[in-house]
Amino acid sequence: MLTKVNEKDSARMYFHCSSSERAVFEAGIKLGAAYHQFVGAPVSMENVEHLEKAIEESMKVQPFVKSVKVHIDRKGLNNKQGTYDYLTLEGKMLNIELEVQYDDKIAVCKLEYVEELDYPLMYVKDIRSV
Amino acid sequence: MLTKVNEKDSARMYFHCSSSERAVFEAGIKLGAAYHQFVGAPVSMENVEHLEKAIEESMKVQPFVKSVKVHIDRKGLNNKQGTYDYLTLEGKMLNIELEVQYDDKIAVCKLEYVEELDYPLMYVKDIRSV
Amino acid sequence: MLTKVNEKDSARMYFHCSSSERAVFEAGIKLGAAYHQFVGAPVSMENVEHLEKAIEESMKVQPFVKSVKVHIDRKGLNNKQGTYDYLTLEGKMLNIELEVQYDDKIAVCKLEYVEELDYPLMYVKDIRSV
Amino acid sequence: MLTKVNEKDSARMYFHCSSSERAVFEAGIKLGAAYHQFVGAPVSMENVEHLEKAIEESMKVQPFVKSVKVHIDRKGLNNKQGTYDYLTLEGKMLNIELEVQYDDKIAVCKLEYVEELDYPLMYVKDIRSV
Repeated sequence: MLTKVNEKDSARMYFHCSSSERAVFEAGIKLGAAYHQFVGAPVSMENVEHLEKAIEESMKVQPFVKSVKVHIDRKGLNNKQGTYDYLTLEGKMLNIELEVQYDDKIAVCKLEYVEELDYPLMYVKDIRSV
Repeated sequence: MLTKVNEKDSARMYFHCSSSERAVFEAGIKLGAAYHQFVGAPVSMENVEHLEKAIEESMKVQPFVKSVKVHIDRKGLNNKQGTYDYLTLEGKMLNIELEVQYDDKIAVCKLEYVEELDYPLMYVKDIRSV
Repeated sequence: MLTKVNEKDSARMYFHCSSSERAVFEAGIKLGAAYHQFVGAPVSMENVEHLEKAIEESMKVQPFVKSVKVHIDRKGLNNKQGTYDYLTLEGKMLNIELEVQYDDKIAVCKLEYVEELDYPLMYVKDIRSV
Repeated sequence: MLTKVNEKDSARMYFHCSSSERAVFEAGIKLGAAYHQFVGAPVSMENVEHLEKAIEESMKVQPFVKSVKVHIDRKGLNNKQGTYDYLTLEGKMLNIELEVQYDDKIAVCKLEYVEELDYPLMYVKDIRSV
């Protein structure tokens, strides 16, 4: 996988924050983007892997993404039969693990459905130094 | 490729139109859906094939789609360098060829950017009988 | 409301179909577009009317739309409390009534959630002549 | 405007970061979400205000948003005539000013098109304490 984490950041002067704040800001953008770009897409057992791959690769082309893993919950994809047997991708079906690196800081972030909140939560698991 | 063109249509009673009208209606839905679902997605030379494939496969899982071919224009994808060297998918970059079959009617439809209209036009090229 | 139903269609030469087929094709595009553009949007009792209005008005600016009414189901919008008390717009919450006119043909189409199909169905209710 | 900045955060235990990091993370989510939810929407002089309002209000219902102002660039909206005289919302047309508050930290963030980068940049202008 190609990352661009070591390139000079030509937009650096616009930011007034620390490297760790920048890393989580960039992570938030990518998670919000992935969710709202792809929720609504038609999904069934036949195309679910293509969709996971497309989401992953669309995140990798964005700045400072170090690694990303996307998983779509298959529960529900097998329940319907016939012509109308596919679903629309919902936020609660999405599980994303994301690492963003800015300078020497790595933000480890996640999107997962949290049942007690009934909410697809995006959160910061850890911020570590390289 | 799996198509579902020969299955019994459990929604048939809701429709008051001919088979050819139904075929083009279904084609219109798929083209409108693909455009508005995926325009905005991050795209570069690195993920363009994954995105094409994901759009194609997301169209194939929908009802009555007989065949579909998606092409994203690479012009512009190579022009930028560095951290911010990707684009957002635009309608004018999308080229889709779509066949939808309902009963014995096949609607051959297309999305392509038409320069004289400066517009990504979705149109009906042909309606033929099986 | 401004409609453009009587304007000369500068794309007419691209189409090989009848006026009624064109009308339902255009209607299909608008329904597919509205669904896949706006599903995923954050929605609560506080912004639901703004979202309905924005969907309606975004459909009216598109070609050949004669009238459109969008309703978002409020069920579920009141069930949650606190910071995370909003939902993501789902297809099954959307109800759209749409009239598209091409030449002397009017396609009356609808999107509504059909419980027996467990599917947000887009269908052609009627095609009539002016 | 209703904000929920002072409510108890029922997801707090999931986060391992400071309040300022949380504030910019939440801001990143909202900017990424707004961009990828609404880019692609049909827009003309007739519906541009409705779309601005809908984006704003969809951001306000999300957690920790203190204030938000959305502006869509009108350049280009008046250039076309006739049936196909509208555009698809592009990232470079969007200008968003956003304040997110978490505990006593306020992240002041922005999305604007930066010509020298040819990029719709989301950035952190300031982080301040209440």
